[in-house]
Amino acid sequence: MSRHLPQVNDVPALDAEITDIDAYMTQLGQAARQAATQMRRETTGRKNAALQAIARHLEAARADLLAANARDLERGRESGLDAALLDRLALDEARLDAMIEGLGQVAALPDPVGEIDGLRARPSGIQVGQMRVPLGVIGIIYESRPNVTVEAASLCLKSGNACILRGGSEARDSNAAIAACLRAGLAEAGLPDAAVQVVATTDRAAVGRLIAMPEFVDVIIPRGGKSLIERISAEARVPVIKHLDGVCHVYVDASADLDKALAIAVNAKTQRYGTCNTMETLLLDAAIAEALLPRLVAAYAEHDVELRGCARSRAIAAELAEAEEADWAAEYLAPILAIRVVDGVDAAMAHIDRYGSHHTDAIVTENYGLARRFLAEVDSSSVMVNASTRFADGFEYGLGAEIGISTDKLHARGPVGLEGLTTRKYVVLGDGHTRG
Amino acid sequence: MSRHLPQVNDVPALDAEITDIDAYMTQLGQAARQAATQMRRETTGRKNAALQAIARHLEAARADLLAANARDLERGRESGLDAALLDRLALDEARLDAMIEGLGQVAALPDPVGEIDGLRARPSGIQVGQMRVPLGVIGIIYESRPNVTVEAASLCLKSGNACILRGGSEARDSNAAIAACLRAGLAEAGLPDAAVQVVATTDRAAVGRLIAMPEFVDVIIPRGGKSLIERISAEARVPVIKHLDGVCHVYVDASADLDKALAIAVNAKTQRYGTCNTMETLLLDAAIAEALLPRLVAAYAEHDVELRGCARSRAIAAELAEAEEADWAAEYLAPILAIRVVDGVDAAMAHIDRYGSHHTDAIVTENYGLARRFLAEVDSSSVMVNASTRFADGFEYGLGAEIGISTDKLHARGPVGLEGLTTRKYVVLGDGHTRG
Repeated sequence: MSRHLPQVNDVPALDAEITDIDAYMTQLGQAARQAATQMRRETTGRKNAALQAIARHLEAARADLLAANARDLERGRESGLDAALLDRLALDEARLDAMIEGLGQVAALPDPVGEIDGLRARPSGIQVGQMRVPLGVIGIIYESRPNVTVEAASLCLKSGNACILRGGSEARDSNAAIAACLRAGLAEAGLPDAAVQVVATTDRAAVGRLIAMPEFVDVIIPRGGKSLIERISAEARVPVIKHLDGVCHVYVDASADLDKALAIAVNAKTQRYGTCNTMETLLLDAAIAEALLPRLVAAYAEHDVELRGCARSRAIAAELAEAEEADWAAEYLAPILAIRVVDGVDAAMAHIDRYGSHHTDAIVTENYGLARRFLAEVDSSSVMVNASTRFADGFEYGLGAEIGISTDKLHARGPVGLEGLTTRKYVVLGDGHTRG
Repeated sequence: MSRHLPQVNDVPALDAEITDIDAYMTQLGQAARQAATQMRRETTGRKNAALQAIARHLEAARADLLAANARDLERGRESGLDAALLDRLALDEARLDAMIEGLGQVAALPDPVGEIDGLRARPSGIQVGQMRVPLGVIGIIYESRPNVTVEAASLCLKSGNACILRGGSEARDSNAAIAACLRAGLAEAGLPDAAVQVVATTDRAAVGRLIAMPEFVDVIIPRGGKSLIERISAEARVPVIKHLDGVCHVYVDASADLDKALAIAVNAKTQRYGTCNTMETLLLDAAIAEALLPRLVAAYAEHDVELRGCARSRAIAAELAEAEEADWAAEYLAPILAIRVVDGVDAAMAHIDRYGSHHTDAIVTENYGLARRFLAEVDSSSVMVNASTRFADGFEYGLGAEIGISTDKLHARGPVGLEGLTTRKYVVLGDGHTRG
C-alpha cells in the first residue's frame, strides 16, 4: 500500500513546470479516458471504499490543508480579492468537517450504475431494457471554493465516471493539497489515479483545451457565474450541462389562502438572497392585491427588502419604488423584489414565460384546476404549488447530493444528482435471435 | 372550418418570393415558439384528431402529391441526381399508404406528456416528482425522402412539440404539397398552424439560421449522411441530437453455441447492408476461429459478401482479402465485412472500444459471467447478448416509432422515440410549505 500513498506535500507540478498546455491537457484527457474504462467495471463497494479513504486522508491532512489554504488567502489578500471572494476561498475546521461528512453521505447514497429499467420481452423474442451507466469523462470548471473539488470528485467517483477538475487559480494551493488526498484515497482503494485529476496549472489555456477535447471528455459542467458559463457554452466542442439564471416567480392567485401566500412569499425571498432559487418577482392577482400587498410590505420591511412595483401595485402601496422594464428580467441575488399586479393565472403565466428564466416558479392557490394547469403549462425546471421556490434543491428533492442545477432542457433538468451524471444504454438479451 | 382549410395547391411561397432569409426564419421561429406554448396544453385526444385529419387530407390529396412528386423527380433527373437518390425521392401509392398508416400508428401510441414519475413525500412535507413535458420547438433537417416530412411532423405533434422541418431542396414540390395537408389537418383539429412548419425556401442560408436561434429552437435533429450531421453539429448554437456512424461488432466467444453464432453473424451482416445497425466487423475468439470461420466463409459466399481478414484469420481461410488498418474503423454500408481473430473477451472489448463507434455491439456466448461483463462494460448505445445487431431499432425495441438513433450519450441514447422528444421537469406539491 505504501507504494501508492503519496504524501500530502507531494503536490502536483505548478505553473512553471507545465510549459506545453496542450500536451499536458491531452495527457490528462488520455489518462481520464483510460480510467473511465476501468471505472465502468468497479463495484459499488470499491467506490465507497475510495470515498471513505479520501475522507480519512483529508482528516489526517487537516493541518496541511489549512496551511495550503492560508497561502492562497495570503496571496488573495495581496492581489486585492474582495471580501466575498476571500470568504468563498477560506477553509476552516467547520468547512473541513463538512467536506469530510459529505464524502460519507455520498458513500451512503445508492449507486445508480447498473440499474436496468423496463426489461421486457418483445414479439421477436428478444428482451430489451435500459441499463444506467456512467457518462465517461466529466470536466468540471469552477471558481474559488476549494470544497467543490471534493464534492465534484465524490459525485463523479460514485457515479463511476472519471473527472478532470479545474478550480479557480486563487485556490491553487488548497486544491493541490486536496488533490493529494484524493490520489491517496483512490490508490488505497485500488482505483486508478486518473479517475480524479485536478488540473495543476492556472493557465487559462487549460480551460480552452479541456472544453475542446470531445475524444477524451464527454461532458463539461461549469459551476460559477453566468459570464463564465456563457463563455464556456459558446466555446465548448463538448456538451455542456449549464446552469444559467434563476429569475424565479411566485404567483398569488385570487383563490389563494393569504396566510400561506404571505409565508411562502416571505420565505421565497428572504430565506437566502444569493441563491438561484430565490424569488425575484412576485405576481399578485388583482383580486387579492389590495388585501395582501399591505401585509407583504410590512413583512418585507422587517427584512429590509427593497420593493419595486408596477403602477397598479404602487397605487395600492405607495411605499414601492417604481419598477422599470429591466426589473422584470432581473436576477437580483439581493434583498430587492419586483412586484407586479396581474389579471389572473393566464396573465401570470404569460409574464413568467416572457420574463422568467424557466428555473423555478410557484403558484399559491386553493383551486384544484388552476394548480393542475400551472403544473402542466409553466415550462420551468421546477414548478410548484403552495411551496416556496427555495425548495428547488437536490437535497430537498431527495437526490442526496447535487452537482448543480441545470437550466437546460435536454438530459438533466433542474437539480442534478448522481443520476444526472449517468446515461442509459439499451441492453438486448437473446438466445440466437436474428431479425426476419 | 372552411376558413382554416387551405387547398392542397395553396403551396407555400417558393424561393423567388422569400428574399430576406433571416427575417423569414425569424418569423417561423417566433411562430413556432408561440405554437409550442399552446401545444403544451393540448390534450392527447386533440393531438390524435390532428394526426387522423392529416391522414385523411393526405388520402384525399393522393393525386396532387404524386403530381408534385413527379415534378421533383423530373427536375431531379434533369439535374442528374443518381438512381439511389431518385429512389429515395420517389413517392408511389405504396409509399403513400405507408405514410398514411404511419399517422394512424403514431395516433395509437401512448402519449408520454404529463406522466409523473416518482412522486414522493420528502421530510419537509412537500411532495416531489418529475413530469414528462414536450421539449418545445424542434428543428429537423433532412434530405431527399419526402415521407420524413410526415413521420417527423407526426412524432413532434404527438409529443406536444412544435417543429420546423427543412427537407432536401430536391423534394421541394413534394414537401410543399405535404405541408398543405399538414396545415389542413392541424386546422381541422383546431391546433395552431405553426405547430408544424415546413421551410419553404431551398436557400441554404435557412439551415444556417435555423440552427442558430436558441431563443426559438430547443433542439435540432439532423437526419442524413455523416457529413451533413457533422457540419450541423459544428455550427449549431442549439443542442443537436446526433446520429453519426454505426461501426457495429459481433464478437463470438469460445463459449458460444456455434450454430447461434453463425445465424447471428450472417443476419447481422446480410439482412440489410445500408443500415447503421449492420455489423461491419466480426471478432472471433481464437479458440473457435478454426471451427467457425470456414462455415462463415461458405455462408457469406452465398450472399456475395467480400471478406477482409487479419493475418490470423487469413491463416485459417486463405479466401479472405487482407484487411488494412482502415478496415477496422470502416462503416462499409455494403456487402463487405472485416474479420479479426482475437484472444478472448478482453481483447474483443479493447478492439470495440478502440475502433467502434459506440453504436451497437453484440457478444455470442453461453457463459453467464461473460455475458454479464460484456453488457456492463461495453460503452455502446445498444449492447446485446446472442442477438443480431440488426435489432437495434425503435420498432424492434417497442418504441412504436423512431425519429432516429442517437449516438450521443446525453439525453437520448440509441433509438429515439416519442419519449426522446420530451424532457422531465420537477413538480413540487405543498400546502403553504416554506424552507427552514
